[in-house]
Amino acid sequence: MRTLKMALDNNHKILTCYLLENSNEFKVNERRPAVIICPGGGYDFTSDREAEPIAMRFAAEGYHTFVLRYTCISDKTPLFPQPLIELAKTVHLLYKNADDWLIDKEKITLCGFSAGGHLVATYGTKWHEDWLSEKVSLPSEERKPSALLLCYPVINLTSGWPGDEIKNKKYSQLLGEEIKLEQKLEEFDASKHVSVHTPPTFIWHTSNDRVVPVSNSLQFISSLDKSHIPFESHIFENGVHGLSLANEVTARDDRHINDAVKEWIPLALTWLKQMRLN
Amino acid sequence: MRTLKMALDNNHKILTCYLLENSNEFKVNERRPAVIICPGGGYDFTSDREAEPIAMRFAAEGYHTFVLRYTCISDKTPLFPQPLIELAKTVHLLYKNADDWLIDKEKITLCGFSAGGHLVATYGTKWHEDWLSEKVSLPSEERKPSALLLCYPVINLTSGWPGDEIKNKKYSQLLGEEIKLEQKLEEFDASKHVSVHTPPTFIWHTSNDRVVPVSNSLQFISSLDKSHIPFESHIFENGVHGLSLANEVTARDDRHINDAVKEWIPLALTWLKQMRLN
Amino acid sequence: MRTLKMALDNNHKILTCYLLENSNEFKVNERRPAVIICPGGGYDFTSDREAEPIAMRFAAEGYHTFVLRYTCISDKTPLFPQPLIELAKTVHLLYKNADDWLIDKEKITLCGFSAGGHLVATYGTKWHEDWLSEKVSLPSEERKPSALLLCYPVINLTSGWPGDEIKNKKYSQLLGEEIKLEQKLEEFDASKHVSVHTPPTFIWHTSNDRVVPVSNSLQFISSLDKSHIPFESHIFENGVHGLSLANEVTARDDRHINDAVKEWIPLALTWLKQMRLN
Amino acid sequence: MRTLKMALDNNHKILTCYLLENSNEFKVNERRPAVIICPGGGYDFTSDREAEPIAMRFAAEGYHTFVLRYTCISDKTPLFPQPLIELAKTVHLLYKNADDWLIDKEKITLCGFSAGGHLVATYGTKWHEDWLSEKVSLPSEERKPSALLLCYPVINLTSGWPGDEIKNKKYSQLLGEEIKLEQKLEEFDASKHVSVHTPPTFIWHTSNDRVVPVSNSLQFISSLDKSHIPFESHIFENGVHGLSLANEVTARDDRHINDAVKEWIPLALTWLKQMRLN
Repeated sequence: MRTLKMALDNNHKILTCYLLENSNEFKVNERRPAVIICPGGGYDFTSDREAEPIAMRFAAEGYHTFVLRYTCISDKTPLFPQPLIELAKTVHLLYKNADDWLIDKEKITLCGFSAGGHLVATYGTKWHEDWLSEKVSLPSEERKPSALLLCYPVINLTSGWPGDEIKNKKYSQLLGEEIKLEQKLEEFDASKHVSVHTPPTFIWHTSNDRVVPVSNSLQFISSLDKSHIPFESHIFENGVHGLSLANEVTARDDRHINDAVKEWIPLALTWLKQMRLN
Repeated sequence: MRTLKMALDNNHKILTCYLLENSNEFKVNERRPAVIICPGGGYDFTSDREAEPIAMRFAAEGYHTFVLRYTCISDKTPLFPQPLIELAKTVHLLYKNADDWLIDKEKITLCGFSAGGHLVATYGTKWHEDWLSEKVSLPSEERKPSALLLCYPVINLTSGWPGDEIKNKKYSQLLGEEIKLEQKLEEFDASKHVSVHTPPTFIWHTSNDRVVPVSNSLQFISSLDKSHIPFESHIFENGVHGLSLANEVTARDDRHINDAVKEWIPLALTWLKQMRLN
Repeated sequence: MRTLKMALDNNHKILTCYLLENSNEFKVNERRPAVIICPGGGYDFTSDREAEPIAMRFAAEGYHTFVLRYTCISDKTPLFPQPLIELAKTVHLLYKNADDWLIDKEKITLCGFSAGGHLVATYGTKWHEDWLSEKVSLPSEERKPSALLLCYPVINLTSGWPGDEIKNKKYSQLLGEEIKLEQKLEEFDASKHVSVHTPPTFIWHTSNDRVVPVSNSLQFISSLDKSHIPFESHIFENGVHGLSLANEVTARDDRHINDAVKEWIPLALTWLKQMRLN
Repeated sequence: MRTLKMALDNNHKILTCYLLENSNEFKVNERRPAVIICPGGGYDFTSDREAEPIAMRFAAEGYHTFVLRYTCISDKTPLFPQPLIELAKTVHLLYKNADDWLIDKEKITLCGFSAGGHLVATYGTKWHEDWLSEKVSLPSEERKPSALLLCYPVINLTSGWPGDEIKNKKYSQLLGEEIKLEQKLEEFDASKHVSVHTPPTFIWHTSNDRVVPVSNSLQFISSLDKSHIPFESHIFENGVHGLSLANEVTARDDRHINDAVKEWIPLALTWLKQMRLN
């Protein structure tokens, strides 16, 4: 394994690359699928619990993995659309290095948790837009994702997260001053931008999540269904926000171990296999 | 195992009971959970593929199981609310025989497939209503279900099933003449009657079901979420309508074998266990 | 499901048959595989914990199942070879009724637990012998088993069961007076009679079983290996004797729930599938 | 993840270390369990298929992992006991760096495949011997392993591997000239040296392995049982030699994908958990 740490731009935000070894004994020079992981953390930070352990789980299944420590509020306000630009550059980096790193460009899955799920869902619905091409000076076909894995994602900023007590502050930090707030909220509501450009999506949540209400996922699912985008969704009845792998590996305490929810990984792997993205 | 076949009323519709043996060696005289199974079949018939094999699968996990061959169109038109009455009588029968059959009355799960899912979802939202008490001459507390398992259910008659080509005929057969059709459609739309009386619900579907569109389940989920009813939902991306167990046991052909979907049974068993309904 | 209770002979020992329904909707008139279950109980009785729950678990996978309550010490001494005769008659009964019951005669698996495992292992190595043909008045080809599932089996009477304190009494009850005891012990030591006639075998045990030591299984495995009989064996490190399904269904107390051991059922089902015996 | 490549001694043999990140968010400064992996390759080479992919699978479960590319025939003849010395130094390296790398010294599992299984089994039975203390200039208590995972291991050099056609050459390469050959073969027969010093062992094989016959494992199991060492063993009926993970990740061709055998990883993980070595 080569582990590379790369700065994405002047912001010095870090992309960690976990590149599996090529071998002369099996899968010789075969291009591998890739997963880019966007941890959560309410755009305040990027959580370790949703970073390397996720990378390792997919690495164990033969994926090259990448953890994007995207820019957060402490680095830049108003924040948007900076994280989208970084994710665009990350996807492009995989395209650009596909020959060297042995990546199958048609098998690049984006996996986001919580706020990182918002980033991924937003990118998944807006990656092809012209303004982004201008921002990153790249044609859209070189930053196209193949699939989205959304884990207890924020889908928009008006369905429970941010909560009332922090809403105004967050809106300001994320979107800037209140001018045209409605318009900006709509712009960063992933459920409003699902289109033929949106890749197939796997999405899971717990129904009693008190930090990011499940209605976020339900709205996105509904949009995917209306636009006939292939999707798979698993809403587990019970579980706190931020379960990550929901097993001992990522548990901070017992609430993070959940026998029902930990099945999301084999379910996601089976789905990726059925979609021929593995 | 005692297998009993019981007529429910003058209609001679059949309830098959699979009662597990009591033993002096383990779980001595312990009351068991129960599952009442309502197969699908578009209210034209009740499918064998969603009957005994489902009963056996739950019997293997220690549940007493019951298959209700409810009245269909060929027996009676307009059909509604006859199947609801039969399901009410079935639940009550379990209450009445709970001591003899060693049933835990607080662990009675209703499991419905397709049209049988419509029957179960409708019952789950209307079991407590007064008109039903009158019809069956029983107080509502003696026919209360503990949980619903809905498998690719029809939720209402206006979301894709019945399809346009048979819609008018079916409406007539199910609901009667067109007088007050709107009102009747609303009455038998389970998503419109979710309330505090609706029990916790596990629901699964495939996103590309062409017979009963997944929007049926999505509407019900949305209603459950709004009413704060505990629910778990699994929407698998790919699979034909009528998968039943989705393994070799219930397959008529290869399309009925689906490695992703067959996980619904362990997922449902885990959920029932978490809800302490096992 | 038809549940039949049949007397096997003058002894009135009972065979319970759980025959799955034939349906016009799937697997129409298709012959099914069968499992004959011999519960354990030290030849003193046949345990309920290893009877119907096992039948249900295989019924859930599409097998016709049969529980043989073979003759025990309380009914007859010396006991042997009476249980072998009953098992021979049971297998033959399946052959004889194969058309009516829709049984595939080439897919008859014998499943024995503890002492019932001794019965099955002994039958599996001796079913073709001439003396048995005389006893049951049937040619051997009409009582041939397809596979053996041995669960913490007794393989011979000299490897720890019966224990020293009951050994003499048991030898007398099982084999009769001490004349030619050595010869009789050898005759009913399944590990001494493995031959080309022995069917493929799946065998599991726990390494710290204090009632029936794992050396029983190890000896049988070694004999199978030497005779080139296909076998699969799973020795779990930890678990009390008599685990049955090792889950809540058959638990008398917490020691009977064992997350490692409960995997024996999916492992056995996968093995039967690979052997095309499902 | 820190990936370190370390030379073990003058031989320049390489140990690759995959050290998981410590985080301030969970398992803060918690010592982790470790797995040292010895790939197979008939002592001619160390196979990539049994190296990094195994490391990744355990890394996904929260283990620090280490791949030892031990000295082979091409580097040194006669070979023995050089690989044992390297493994001793590797275990000691983990002890020495336990504070820095956050390793729990009481949770160091050795995992060997085929010839690497021979290395691990031999080390597991001889790690405490005085001659090794002299060779590595270390007290035995600083190189004690906690458990062995043996995957289709060679246990001795007289049970089918090396095969007749290469036997004499291999004996010479591994053990040296024929003087005292019997004694040397006995010395490197792991089944002959099981003692109270041998750690708990998990061992798996396929019954029809044509390269390394299953009798190798059966002999080791028998020795473990006689010495009352806790063990778990899984002999799958069918599968070629060298299956590694038995899934797509390590497959060179379709024979390397095996639905039964791929269960060895969850079985091993459950065992390690039950032994509190996770």
